[in-house]
Amino acid sequence: MPNFRPVLFVVSILLLALAATMLIPAGVDAVYGNPDWKVFLGSAGFTGACGGALALATRCRMRGGLSLRQAFLLTPLSWCATAAFAAVPFQFCHFPDLSLNYANAFFETMSGLTTTGATVLVGLDSTPEGILLWRALIQWLGGIGIVAVAIAVLPALRVGGMQLFRTESSDRSAKVLPRAQQIAKAIGGVYAGLTVVCGLSYWAAGMTPFEAVVHALTSVSTGGYSTSDSSIGHFDSPVLHWLVTFFMLAGSLPFVLYVRTLTGQTDALWRDSQVRSLLVFLAAVILPLSAWLTWRSDYAFPDALRLVAFNVVSVVSTTGYALTDYSLWGNLAVGVFFGLTFIGGCTGSTSGGMKIFRFEVMAVLLRTHFLRLLYPRGVFPRQYGNRLLDDDVLGSVIVFFALFFSAYSLLTIALMAFGLDFITSASAAVTSLANVGPGLGTIIGPAGNFSTLPDGAKWLLSFGMLLGRLELFTVLILFMPQFWRS
Amino acid sequence: MPNFRPVLFVVSILLLALAATMLIPAGVDAVYGNPDWKVFLGSAGFTGACGGALALATRCRMRGGLSLRQAFLLTPLSWCATAAFAAVPFQFCHFPDLSLNYANAFFETMSGLTTTGATVLVGLDSTPEGILLWRALIQWLGGIGIVAVAIAVLPALRVGGMQLFRTESSDRSAKVLPRAQQIAKAIGGVYAGLTVVCGLSYWAAGMTPFEAVVHALTSVSTGGYSTSDSSIGHFDSPVLHWLVTFFMLAGSLPFVLYVRTLTGQTDALWRDSQVRSLLVFLAAVILPLSAWLTWRSDYAFPDALRLVAFNVVSVVSTTGYALTDYSLWGNLAVGVFFGLTFIGGCTGSTSGGMKIFRFEVMAVLLRTHFLRLLYPRGVFPRQYGNRLLDDDVLGSVIVFFALFFSAYSLLTIALMAFGLDFITSASAAVTSLANVGPGLGTIIGPAGNFSTLPDGAKWLLSFGMLLGRLELFTVLILFMPQFWRS
Repeated sequence: MPNFRPVLFVVSILLLALAATMLIPAGVDAVYGNPDWKVFLGSAGFTGACGGALALATRCRMRGGLSLRQAFLLTPLSWCATAAFAAVPFQFCHFPDLSLNYANAFFETMSGLTTTGATVLVGLDSTPEGILLWRALIQWLGGIGIVAVAIAVLPALRVGGMQLFRTESSDRSAKVLPRAQQIAKAIGGVYAGLTVVCGLSYWAAGMTPFEAVVHALTSVSTGGYSTSDSSIGHFDSPVLHWLVTFFMLAGSLPFVLYVRTLTGQTDALWRDSQVRSLLVFLAAVILPLSAWLTWRSDYAFPDALRLVAFNVVSVVSTTGYALTDYSLWGNLAVGVFFGLTFIGGCTGSTSGGMKIFRFEVMAVLLRTHFLRLLYPRGVFPRQYGNRLLDDDVLGSVIVFFALFFSAYSLLTIALMAFGLDFITSASAAVTSLANVGPGLGTIIGPAGNFSTLPDGAKWLLSFGMLLGRLELFTVLILFMPQFWRS
Repeated sequence: MPNFRPVLFVVSILLLALAATMLIPAGVDAVYGNPDWKVFLGSAGFTGACGGALALATRCRMRGGLSLRQAFLLTPLSWCATAAFAAVPFQFCHFPDLSLNYANAFFETMSGLTTTGATVLVGLDSTPEGILLWRALIQWLGGIGIVAVAIAVLPALRVGGMQLFRTESSDRSAKVLPRAQQIAKAIGGVYAGLTVVCGLSYWAAGMTPFEAVVHALTSVSTGGYSTSDSSIGHFDSPVLHWLVTFFMLAGSLPFVLYVRTLTGQTDALWRDSQVRSLLVFLAAVILPLSAWLTWRSDYAFPDALRLVAFNVVSVVSTTGYALTDYSLWGNLAVGVFFGLTFIGGCTGSTSGGMKIFRFEVMAVLLRTHFLRLLYPRGVFPRQYGNRLLDDDVLGSVIVFFALFFSAYSLLTIALMAFGLDFITSASAAVTSLANVGPGLGTIIGPAGNFSTLPDGAKWLLSFGMLLGRLELFTVLILFMPQFWRS
């Protein structure tokens, strides 16, 4: 058995930070006069005490960083431990129409930390401010958390082809920001700055300051929690809809590119293959679908474009805000949105899903394979941008696809075993794995939510969200007996 | 533009053979006194005339075999041309309750030639014998056709990992049957022999001689056309159900192994990795599902076992006979059967689907990948049986998975564009690509059929069946512009 003491020590630090964060909603509830401030204060105390005790018990010097196995264990463990404690306020807060058991509270929290945004809450419009802010804060923390993990941890673990994005070797602005720690700080700054700009824009476009804060926190993190049961549909402002679309998209681009853009490499975003592919893909879906919707419905083209762009970006960026119930647009729309749920944004962003670069790698593989079939003696190197795709990266991407579809199939069948119908099960499986949020069908569709699902299904979906968020490998490797052997 | 004259010549020979085959149902209808004998005679004349004219126009010496591109073109072209002409009798025969347009006739024929078994006919129980026999003959010819292609053509084209099964290098009984032609003859003999044994068994178990012939032709070919709208459910005999299960399974094992078994290598079947994996997989699905059905319903365990074994083997062997409507067993069963539709039998058999060996190759890839993640400096060779999986085979299998799921997704969305619901579209897409037959849901489920689908959907599904039957690559490569350049 390897030494997991340093892992637990890092987790304890995270819990202490979480406890400190709980003081924010406590303060907000105190200001608004909601009695829930006591719940948050108590939760902060409890979490802080547990975190402190764990820190004292596992205190150690972190010289030389973590070993491979320690890093593999740390990632899922920190998400689970944070979720377990961040769920406490949900269970004890006073909701107008419901009370949550721990399965519900944990689901809501895991959905937040993984920036999924699937919710079991109803009556958001009359829910106290503290808990609404807490949900948004969890998503915001989950968002910056996954960016950090995707940039700093996963490439070193060679997970899912992420090694393509190793900052040490591929970062061309290495001279400007030489060290990983500096990159991390810069990305944190960009993330916070983007959130502030987003919030101010939303405020200017007509949201109340509180609504603007909550939606800024959940837009940039591509999380999708809202202050209203009808999500962004609550706000009847085309300008605001376009703004939200813009910031969801902003959250699904690689944050390291913002840093490069700000440090002088102004074409960094547009020169990136992933970003270009994402934008081209979005245009290729949005424009024909808008034309089709204009033809099929009473919408004028600008309205159709706005609705389609919003919903497509919401799903592909894996935010999951709802604006209209697109399942009413007919079966073609249902099929398209189901397919879009798998895609996801760019790696190194807050978005989930299978991610654009993996489809790009797969496209390279397909193209070269067909050329090799046709010209058996030809030489067709597999190139991504200006890099040769080695066996290691290719294998990672392929195994990711295999794992994703296996997990999707098994999760769907497991949900059907709870008696759920096919479209609810299939869409819940993929929406949780891809961290999107809403599913399809009458129960969990854009107009519904996850509250009526059986508790067992909620635990399964919580696991699915974690699995998808951490790129599958990082969680599944813990199930290998070899992992636990010394 | 390459020289496609020899390809057309081979097609013309196939058409002449098809015309000759049409004389069989003509004779049967004459014996039974059905007026359709004229239709079959006319179709034979028409097909024979077209085939003869094409043969005269493209007559050439076939020295040195076909080039790579010629072989790529021949495979889909022979299926399409045969289907186009074999469909003629369906359009002109006299059905009791319906008349078919060409879209329906072509769908029924392509479904037969690809041994899919999805049908647009209703009122089979009162349909004349000639047309029932014609459907069965088409499936039987399609079955032996695909075995020949899978053994002789696809490995040379390096399609979908089939090169793993190149007879020249991997056939350990090369000394007994040294030449490919001899293997082909032996396999044809085994196929015919198995059909005779199957027919006699069915007759002995209570079918009429005509029913026994039809079902023997469609069992060994894992096709699934029947003489009754209620398929095998028409026959109330447990012994017969087990017999059908046995022969569906027999049709989904590699035929070359039967030849080896008969030529002295008696453990050939059991020593084959694919066969073992298929049997283990079937047991792992059938036993728990039977236990679950016993617990959930009023069936005694032996009855539950019989029903589950029949339906699971029917789907995994891609036969598609129906015995009971398993969608009434609850949502878990629907999910499981939906998943089973993808699997398929062994390569070199008449069954379709993704095929067991591809899952085996993928499992090897997954296992070694996780070990490499955990022990970055370890050496973990990718082995299948006692062979090392090279880049070529691995790439083929991976690209096959990618193509299959892409085709499945696009087909599903295209079907939804015709207004079909999600489960109908998704299950129709996979059941056609995997050449299984029935889908799920109220329209095309085990209790329904494809007759009410729009014509456009039928053309799409016909294309899907062809795509799946010919392992995708062989059809899709024709869409590359490079294919048509000289």
